[in-house]
Amino acid sequence: MPVSIKESPLYRIANPRSIAFFGASNNMTAMGTSQLLSLLDLGFEGPVYPVHPTEKRVQGLRAYPAVSALPESPDLAVIVLPTRIVPEILDACGKKGIRRAIVVSGGFKEVGGRGVTLEAEVVRIARKHGIRFLGPNCIGVANPHHRLNTTFFRHEGTPGFIGMASQSGSFVTQIFNHLSRMGMGFSSAFSVGNEADIDIVDCLEYLGACPRTRVIALYIEGIKRGRKFMETARAIVPDKPIVAVYVGGTEAGRRAGFSHTGAMAGPAELYEGAFRQCGILPARSIIEMFDFCRVLGLLPPAKGRGVVIQTHSGGPGAAAADSCSRAGLELPGLSEATLRRLAPFVPHTGSLHNPVDLTFTKNPADYYEAVPDAILSGENVHVLLMYLFLPLSTVRRAIEQMGLPEDRVEKETDRFIRDQADAVARVAERHGKPVVGYTLRDLREPLFRRLMELGVPVFSGPERAARAIGALAAYSLRRRGT
Amino acid sequence: MPVSIKESPLYRIANPRSIAFFGASNNMTAMGTSQLLSLLDLGFEGPVYPVHPTEKRVQGLRAYPAVSALPESPDLAVIVLPTRIVPEILDACGKKGIRRAIVVSGGFKEVGGRGVTLEAEVVRIARKHGIRFLGPNCIGVANPHHRLNTTFFRHEGTPGFIGMASQSGSFVTQIFNHLSRMGMGFSSAFSVGNEADIDIVDCLEYLGACPRTRVIALYIEGIKRGRKFMETARAIVPDKPIVAVYVGGTEAGRRAGFSHTGAMAGPAELYEGAFRQCGILPARSIIEMFDFCRVLGLLPPAKGRGVVIQTHSGGPGAAAADSCSRAGLELPGLSEATLRRLAPFVPHTGSLHNPVDLTFTKNPADYYEAVPDAILSGENVHVLLMYLFLPLSTVRRAIEQMGLPEDRVEKETDRFIRDQADAVARVAERHGKPVVGYTLRDLREPLFRRLMELGVPVFSGPERAARAIGALAAYSLRRRGT
Repeated sequence: MPVSIKESPLYRIANPRSIAFFGASNNMTAMGTSQLLSLLDLGFEGPVYPVHPTEKRVQGLRAYPAVSALPESPDLAVIVLPTRIVPEILDACGKKGIRRAIVVSGGFKEVGGRGVTLEAEVVRIARKHGIRFLGPNCIGVANPHHRLNTTFFRHEGTPGFIGMASQSGSFVTQIFNHLSRMGMGFSSAFSVGNEADIDIVDCLEYLGACPRTRVIALYIEGIKRGRKFMETARAIVPDKPIVAVYVGGTEAGRRAGFSHTGAMAGPAELYEGAFRQCGILPARSIIEMFDFCRVLGLLPPAKGRGVVIQTHSGGPGAAAADSCSRAGLELPGLSEATLRRLAPFVPHTGSLHNPVDLTFTKNPADYYEAVPDAILSGENVHVLLMYLFLPLSTVRRAIEQMGLPEDRVEKETDRFIRDQADAVARVAERHGKPVVGYTLRDLREPLFRRLMELGVPVFSGPERAARAIGALAAYSLRRRGT
Repeated sequence: MPVSIKESPLYRIANPRSIAFFGASNNMTAMGTSQLLSLLDLGFEGPVYPVHPTEKRVQGLRAYPAVSALPESPDLAVIVLPTRIVPEILDACGKKGIRRAIVVSGGFKEVGGRGVTLEAEVVRIARKHGIRFLGPNCIGVANPHHRLNTTFFRHEGTPGFIGMASQSGSFVTQIFNHLSRMGMGFSSAFSVGNEADIDIVDCLEYLGACPRTRVIALYIEGIKRGRKFMETARAIVPDKPIVAVYVGGTEAGRRAGFSHTGAMAGPAELYEGAFRQCGILPARSIIEMFDFCRVLGLLPPAKGRGVVIQTHSGGPGAAAADSCSRAGLELPGLSEATLRRLAPFVPHTGSLHNPVDLTFTKNPADYYEAVPDAILSGENVHVLLMYLFLPLSTVRRAIEQMGLPEDRVEKETDRFIRDQADAVARVAERHGKPVVGYTLRDLREPLFRRLMELGVPVFSGPERAARAIGALAAYSLRRRGT
């Protein structure tokens, strides 16, 4: 039974109407300053009130000497101040009526000693005022749909469908660039830090209920509320997929996690078992986690593990077949009907086994429409994995040879490439089955960019594509209860 | 005992002084035409003689109606003709005195039936004339040092140090773009096709003896001369590393390989065992194989498995620690002397465990010089793995704030980034130890490009970096006999 998003303590943290900001100044090297600039850069639409003991204006905004001087009680306080003054500032926020906070400051439990006492003090003051907060030792929230970004770095790319809860702030703020290059973005992303109050389980609940979140990504160094985590995950998985990276399973990962956020990790087997029970998809790395998010958020379900590989080159076909097998996928043979439909397109050097290897096609456009259409019409074909290799220079050279005037070559080259991408997307749409591309070329080439715009994911190399399809099939089959 | 490179049957295939070219025309869609254009595009310096029954000129070169009409007996014939006329053309080449050939044409053993007979005929004719040849069903050779590229696609990037022998032509010609984006290139790369005469073992011997080859990459669907392969590999490994991808180990990979080149594959365990015995480093994918080549070709040996991770962000540090552990690496603690040297650079929020997590540095330049220098001075530190995240926009913003005139901001931004990269390379050089970077940002950013120019490899994500360091350590330790 998913909670209503508005009941979550995170609702006004991810969707504040107004913000009090502590720790930003006109000194560019202060951490708080970068965070305020990130917020302003993304164009947060509500009032932002910098609080600063001496400056009258901070980064162009009117500043206030104390939180008590603010003209209203804002929805959210963002605190980037020296550790020792955090308790007193939080107390002042409470007195002003502020009920949500992000404590960015570090130097608490994760450093031990006096940090532990200070963190307990922060919790005590928050409880006293009924303040719910993220952190300490976190970088806060990015909700680009709400033009909210409290993190160190400027947002890149566009709002998207990945909901993230992370025990590392870096995988929120330092991943914007990666996501935007892959044509993806966050719905909302939370850095939980030391989880002194709100924890990763609260974030999971929020993301489960968040209508903009199609897939949930978790970066985990150690879970404290294990039972509640599993209950929550199990309730969400039938509605939306959850992907997780767990790094506390190795001795080195555990030690690193502990000095990072003070999280207590357990053996990898424990977490893997728990993930399996709840239907959480485990990823081997951060990059892989977002690969999984990409197919899970973009593609229709796979009705089974049957993948057909389409290629015009033997090696990339064989390498993809190998990667698919390793990823637990199956490579069914083609039906008689499909073989008949494909026969006209496959020269004698080609192969109609799976991989379907055309070696070459007389009409290049067949590769992007007639061939995938014929393959996807097979009932035992659940996913099409297409090798893509169409260098711009090759297309341009071919078009030049058609004797077009100079000024039309560029335009026709663009149009040809665009047409092929459109054809692939159209065929995928018509069959309602997942179509995934892989290439060895730069993903910024126009064919791949256009495909990605149209929701057809393209991966660098067959291994990443096959692993992602494996995750999609695992999730689809679990959801169908098979 | 390595053979002399000139004794290899491949010597005049990889280093021809003149070439007879069969199958190119003025028709742009013919396969042979693209291959001739690739050759001309790279600027092959010797004479090229297109042989064409009717055209007087082919792609701007004087064409000859038959090989018998050529003014000399060229070192090499490249044959891209319909399957059935290949035997007769090869016979004519033999009569003209040509002793080396690349048979690109497909439709032989890999398609079965009459193809098998035709392939036997080609072999018989070659033997009669003493012709040694690559193929059939291959795309030939790229030796960019010799400006030779007989493959379908134009060469991209610069000549390099990777010697490749591949049972897929695609992984020669369709990988130019990937290698060039990673700042690498081939010394020589051979597509072996059906291996009717010259096989992958001959290529391995050649590359073992090739002075421009620092590391050998093998793409394998199935080895015929198993014993000789192992003998050859074992003789080469003490001098240069060999990395291999084997795709015949899964049922799907095996089937795909068979219809591709007719190769007979064996179980994965068999190949893995053989690789281990010879000291060949197994890679899980093509992309990973070239990742391994990168560190093996660029970096000094690792004297052990001890890696120190340097980061300014906890999550990327913990994820790297986890990846290193999975890759069989160790994360030693730092010596007292190193801890003393590092102390001034690490704020109270940071950690001096391994990962060394600075969280932030007052002077950003410390991160690129003083800190890695202190870490690498530790005797138990064999490799430094550095997290890198320095967005251009962040540097520019900081420099703008220093109040420089507009026109100097760009220049100072470039200089700052360049200085940091130079510092890292200098420190690595001074210690003679491997330094590897990883990032979540685009590898084309200036910091990474400069580092790669200076021979410091930077990887996308910690997992790829850790796996590559694992391969480097495995090779270094084997070579030292420990």
